[in-house]
Amino acid sequence: MSKKVGVWLIGAYGGVATTAIVGLVALQRKLTENHGLVSELPQFQQANLIEWDNLVVGGHDIRKSTLATEANQLLNDSRLLSPALLELCQEDFARINEEIRPGIIFNVGKTITSLSDPEMTKTGASPRDLIESVKEDLKLFASTNNLSKVIVMNVSSTEPTVDASVLPAKWDDLDGMLDSNDCPLAASSLYAIAALQSGMPYLNFTPSLGTAPDALCELAEMNKVCHMGHDGKTGETLLKSALAPMFQHRNLNIMSWVGHNIFGNMDGKVLDDPENKKTKVVSKDKLLGQILGYDPQTHISIEYIKSLGDWKTAWDHIHFEGFLSTPMVMQFTWQGSDSILAAPLVLDLVRFTELAHRRGETGLLKDLCCFFKSPLGVPENNFVKQFQLLEKWATR
Amino acid sequence: MSKKVGVWLIGAYGGVATTAIVGLVALQRKLTENHGLVSELPQFQQANLIEWDNLVVGGHDIRKSTLATEANQLLNDSRLLSPALLELCQEDFARINEEIRPGIIFNVGKTITSLSDPEMTKTGASPRDLIESVKEDLKLFASTNNLSKVIVMNVSSTEPTVDASVLPAKWDDLDGMLDSNDCPLAASSLYAIAALQSGMPYLNFTPSLGTAPDALCELAEMNKVCHMGHDGKTGETLLKSALAPMFQHRNLNIMSWVGHNIFGNMDGKVLDDPENKKTKVVSKDKLLGQILGYDPQTHISIEYIKSLGDWKTAWDHIHFEGFLSTPMVMQFTWQGSDSILAAPLVLDLVRFTELAHRRGETGLLKDLCCFFKSPLGVPENNFVKQFQLLEKWATR
Amino acid sequence: MSKKVGVWLIGAYGGVATTAIVGLVALQRKLTENHGLVSELPQFQQANLIEWDNLVVGGHDIRKSTLATEANQLLNDSRLLSPALLELCQEDFARINEEIRPGIIFNVGKTITSLSDPEMTKTGASPRDLIESVKEDLKLFASTNNLSKVIVMNVSSTEPTVDASVLPAKWDDLDGMLDSNDCPLAASSLYAIAALQSGMPYLNFTPSLGTAPDALCELAEMNKVCHMGHDGKTGETLLKSALAPMFQHRNLNIMSWVGHNIFGNMDGKVLDDPENKKTKVVSKDKLLGQILGYDPQTHISIEYIKSLGDWKTAWDHIHFEGFLSTPMVMQFTWQGSDSILAAPLVLDLVRFTELAHRRGETGLLKDLCCFFKSPLGVPENNFVKQFQLLEKWATR
Amino acid sequence: MSKKVGVWLIGAYGGVATTAIVGLVALQRKLTENHGLVSELPQFQQANLIEWDNLVVGGHDIRKSTLATEANQLLNDSRLLSPALLELCQEDFARINEEIRPGIIFNVGKTITSLSDPEMTKTGASPRDLIESVKEDLKLFASTNNLSKVIVMNVSSTEPTVDASVLPAKWDDLDGMLDSNDCPLAASSLYAIAALQSGMPYLNFTPSLGTAPDALCELAEMNKVCHMGHDGKTGETLLKSALAPMFQHRNLNIMSWVGHNIFGNMDGKVLDDPENKKTKVVSKDKLLGQILGYDPQTHISIEYIKSLGDWKTAWDHIHFEGFLSTPMVMQFTWQGSDSILAAPLVLDLVRFTELAHRRGETGLLKDLCCFFKSPLGVPENNFVKQFQLLEKWATR
Repeated sequence: MSKKVGVWLIGAYGGVATTAIVGLVALQRKLTENHGLVSELPQFQQANLIEWDNLVVGGHDIRKSTLATEANQLLNDSRLLSPALLELCQEDFARINEEIRPGIIFNVGKTITSLSDPEMTKTGASPRDLIESVKEDLKLFASTNNLSKVIVMNVSSTEPTVDASVLPAKWDDLDGMLDSNDCPLAASSLYAIAALQSGMPYLNFTPSLGTAPDALCELAEMNKVCHMGHDGKTGETLLKSALAPMFQHRNLNIMSWVGHNIFGNMDGKVLDDPENKKTKVVSKDKLLGQILGYDPQTHISIEYIKSLGDWKTAWDHIHFEGFLSTPMVMQFTWQGSDSILAAPLVLDLVRFTELAHRRGETGLLKDLCCFFKSPLGVPENNFVKQFQLLEKWATR
Repeated sequence: MSKKVGVWLIGAYGGVATTAIVGLVALQRKLTENHGLVSELPQFQQANLIEWDNLVVGGHDIRKSTLATEANQLLNDSRLLSPALLELCQEDFARINEEIRPGIIFNVGKTITSLSDPEMTKTGASPRDLIESVKEDLKLFASTNNLSKVIVMNVSSTEPTVDASVLPAKWDDLDGMLDSNDCPLAASSLYAIAALQSGMPYLNFTPSLGTAPDALCELAEMNKVCHMGHDGKTGETLLKSALAPMFQHRNLNIMSWVGHNIFGNMDGKVLDDPENKKTKVVSKDKLLGQILGYDPQTHISIEYIKSLGDWKTAWDHIHFEGFLSTPMVMQFTWQGSDSILAAPLVLDLVRFTELAHRRGETGLLKDLCCFFKSPLGVPENNFVKQFQLLEKWATR
Repeated sequence: MSKKVGVWLIGAYGGVATTAIVGLVALQRKLTENHGLVSELPQFQQANLIEWDNLVVGGHDIRKSTLATEANQLLNDSRLLSPALLELCQEDFARINEEIRPGIIFNVGKTITSLSDPEMTKTGASPRDLIESVKEDLKLFASTNNLSKVIVMNVSSTEPTVDASVLPAKWDDLDGMLDSNDCPLAASSLYAIAALQSGMPYLNFTPSLGTAPDALCELAEMNKVCHMGHDGKTGETLLKSALAPMFQHRNLNIMSWVGHNIFGNMDGKVLDDPENKKTKVVSKDKLLGQILGYDPQTHISIEYIKSLGDWKTAWDHIHFEGFLSTPMVMQFTWQGSDSILAAPLVLDLVRFTELAHRRGETGLLKDLCCFFKSPLGVPENNFVKQFQLLEKWATR
Repeated sequence: MSKKVGVWLIGAYGGVATTAIVGLVALQRKLTENHGLVSELPQFQQANLIEWDNLVVGGHDIRKSTLATEANQLLNDSRLLSPALLELCQEDFARINEEIRPGIIFNVGKTITSLSDPEMTKTGASPRDLIESVKEDLKLFASTNNLSKVIVMNVSSTEPTVDASVLPAKWDDLDGMLDSNDCPLAASSLYAIAALQSGMPYLNFTPSLGTAPDALCELAEMNKVCHMGHDGKTGETLLKSALAPMFQHRNLNIMSWVGHNIFGNMDGKVLDDPENKKTKVVSKDKLLGQILGYDPQTHISIEYIKSLGDWKTAWDHIHFEGFLSTPMVMQFTWQGSDSILAAPLVLDLVRFTELAHRRGETGLLKDLCCFFKSPLGVPENNFVKQFQLLEKWATR
């Protein structure tokens, strides 16, 4: 049986996917160190994770582009990636471009729709048609490349919020809605259905809905396939999950926690649309109450500031009360490249998910919770404790 | 048997001790909330910790002062403590002042010595004489107040560094040095010897040597008494122990971690003396290498800036490399009152140590490591993991 | 002729007015240093400014309160003002409370209206009636206290934006609108009309419209009275007017300037209403383009964070391009008490305006532009140059 | 007469010089915008400044290197300069390399000496010999390139402090000391003497002594040549000179101003030597007292943090008292590339100095004070006022 495993990226021309592809090529060609890769930590060296050489990349996008174009834009707009490295990736880029297919736009809101190119979007009479078309792409990718399995990862732009509470809890009921264009699901869930029905693990690195609905969790179990989400934890929220336990363990009463985020990449542009922003803010704002055991006043802003490109800058102001009700302040600023922080986690998730699939695990991969802002099915948000779960699981 | 337990504070007129005393009185009189007190967290409510009402305070100092004077200075210089609360504490202050005895100055360096008052310093022909005099104070305190036990806590100014490597490893050899004024031990260790020989637990909340030497650890075991140190983890270092694991778990390579600390209280004045500062900086700088597994370039400064009073302000600049060796930056500022952060931990340590003593534990109380910058005998500096040790121990 | 001059504060129970009153009393009783007072700088000592002892305070408010109540709230919520000082002000407070009259609510928006007390709001059949009632209060204040003149200062909450472009340019036309409740002016302008028609100088320390309309400027000239506005420059905007010239003079190209402001006093509560916030943001955002000569992307947020009380905290992120188009970053945080910063400027403005009035100046006092975020009739926003105008004018 | 003017850079392989050269080439080839160049501001377009095309570069250094090597190091260590631009500069680099001659090391301290290469350092029996050798280099440069004049600019590493008070006030007396190797002058002054005696203007962009001594000022007048210094104002100090006037004009009492600077370029390495650092700190610390009229507590640190490369990061903490003695805080961080900030000012200074020379001005060019941390002969440190001097002078 082939050792090759497919990595299917939804949003393949986005900054995160492009950086993940550049990074994977660099790792395969031994052109980079392993900074930022969790799966390369010493404790996971005995975990028998798949080797970089055995990963093959393809994906969907709704924009017409090439990897070289996107990589150059990261270089020019954000001073990321080195020209020398990109030079060495040209052949790989050309090969991978061939595996990038037109994607679907369904309930993605007007901002994402406006970014799409008609030639790069599938047409279909119904959500079910779109799902079938995605399944064909996945099947073709696997067979063409002789892949033993394919892992599907959503790294596309954040969709407007879908009200999950109106969705039926059972797959059969949801299935019945797929023939109508009134179906409330958005593209991220249609892709997810395609993956699960193809027996392929699905990971949702975005705050979009994906496999979060109960009916999709049921579908995953029915298809004996694993999945996890959602929203990769890369910056400000990661810091919250590391810092909030400190305040909690010291009984320091957080009165308010304000976080302002500014950045200028395409994700930022999409999040500038209030419809899409809402999905993100909700995802970022949950964990504090869970860690602290009470709900301090919080405020989270995300603003599109073009000049920053991919450099997400956050300022957090934490106002807390100590002994004798004395108010004190901690502030931090975080200047991180969104794509550079996310890309290695995408690759890590592929490796850990491939391991889970090999072990025959199905349903939610809760032990991967440390990678997500809002880990499905997991109440724990203390980052160190989440990481302990990963360590125990991966090395058992 | 009396339920009353003594708390003996070395440096009783210092900011930390004064605040701990104000806080204890406020707790006893139910005038304050329990913010900042670890021992008041829900998970410790079944741990059968001693009640605030049963604690009785005394201590040593080398300056002539009163608690009212010191509390007012915190109010005026640093806008700490409320005038209304201090008004309500006057009687307690008067009572506790009576229990504050002259202390010892031995190898404490010129800066601390210059702060001392001849009337408030013990004289003795030798270190042994000084130890004996301390023991008498402790004995008198216990008997006068009908105390079942006394816990001794060092909250005095940081001493110049003692080279621990020149000290003999065995108590008998060290004991032989106590008759000579050439004895390399400093006051913190003499107090510690007095406590241990009196069968009283000793806690070292400062970076001074205290019971760190092997010979003193042996003495503790010989006297079947528990002890722990050193250097209370209250601010910047606490943050390091919460943040460094996050970088480590994400394989983000820290290239440099720079920390600048400014403050203006008496501790700051003492640390302005390079002799004393060295002791502190070493204590603050160890943990990073232990958590990360490698040693990034670090720089720690501590500067005395008078106008800040007790408000310790830290700026930390963390320069790290992520995926594809991309440099990124996190910075934080911390504006915390040194005394307000430390005082509740002093009270917590008394309660947990009293529990250990009641349980018959002897030697180093390693499970209390989360309270210390350089926990004796404990390699773990990841704060969340340290806290898990405390939880498990206290609630077993 | 009496040397006494009246200071009439609109919004007399607000944080700024309360602090100005406490400060004035402290200055009159020689209980404080002169920090924060521009008029106390050495260069103005020969300017023959009115003495503190000669100022008498009164005002309008729409809330039922007392100065003691308001001062205590600043103390309790924001750790401002010292208990000892407030103790010494009690008598003065009682006297000044007597001079605080019910105010007017007209087009002030629902948030301000919801804060008002029926007993403390004037009723009238038309804007003209309200104006007349204010004039009577001013007249009574002057006569009761034997004042040679009265200076009226608006320090009340920010009103919703009035579209100044729909207002007639001539006073006669505007005057005709005062009998209808459809009159688009808001309270700040009605107070202004009352002051100007009473021959009393009017200063607008808020971003509300006040005397900004051309018709009111004409009215001022008709009545030979001086006036100025608007929006006191106290914090973040002051910094912009000091920093932006530096970037301009060095030809550093500002790509984006983001400013986030958080605070929790009543002004913050009012600005939490988007209607009112808009007025403020527009006022804060103008000057950059004027100083730089081009318009970088800007973003200004103002958020109500209750725990901060009067402590306005701003984070500004300035992204600029230097030589060879290299991007660089400056960030600042500003932790200032809104009332403490504004109050002395209120007193300064009274003194400088009194001088102008004594000199017979009429119309806009453009030389006072350094005090305002959006100085009426003055294109200059470079703070040092604005201050040079003040120096030259005051000492001529 | 030739229109060509020489720019002679002492420290030609340093980061500032390399960047200035790259930038000049880019300007000559129209490959860059004019950000960061003061002389390109609109107000100086009628000042008849020399055109970029007419500048010819040469210089001294004590290290063996090439411009291509140094430019690549800036690219690799600090992510400065674009690979594409450097590619286009290769020919110019090769040509300019030919004009870089061995320099002198005299009283430059052990750290600078350790960086030097014997092949790149002049030998001479005495300071006078070294001066003569420099003069020959300058003469040869002028004649080879058919230059109408040469402007000499010191952009080399900071020397240890020379005690200027022990130097004779008259040139004749100082001249007599040049034959002995005990002469207290350091290299920067020897270069300066060579320039002045050659009738060439000398600019000192570093805190080293250069032409600061009275005797050298006399020498300049004797030779009817202009000069100015010292220490280019590029970052933290520039900010101080823009911010301190704001505090002063508002009568806000600065209690302490703390500035921590970290960076990792060669200048940082040299400043890591306490001997050299002292010179710099003194230069950075003077202006506050001059602007404010009183001396707050200050603390300035400069630390070499290798990973930062050329990115000088400063954290400043300003603790000030406002009305009613209320303490408040402003903090800023500055992340600027040292070379990118300095290089355009070097080019600006050449243009303005060339203008002064053309106008026949001699002695100190005080109107250029806005470029310097410690402008010789100028008490004014308010940046906006300094800039007004430049505007008036250049456009008169």
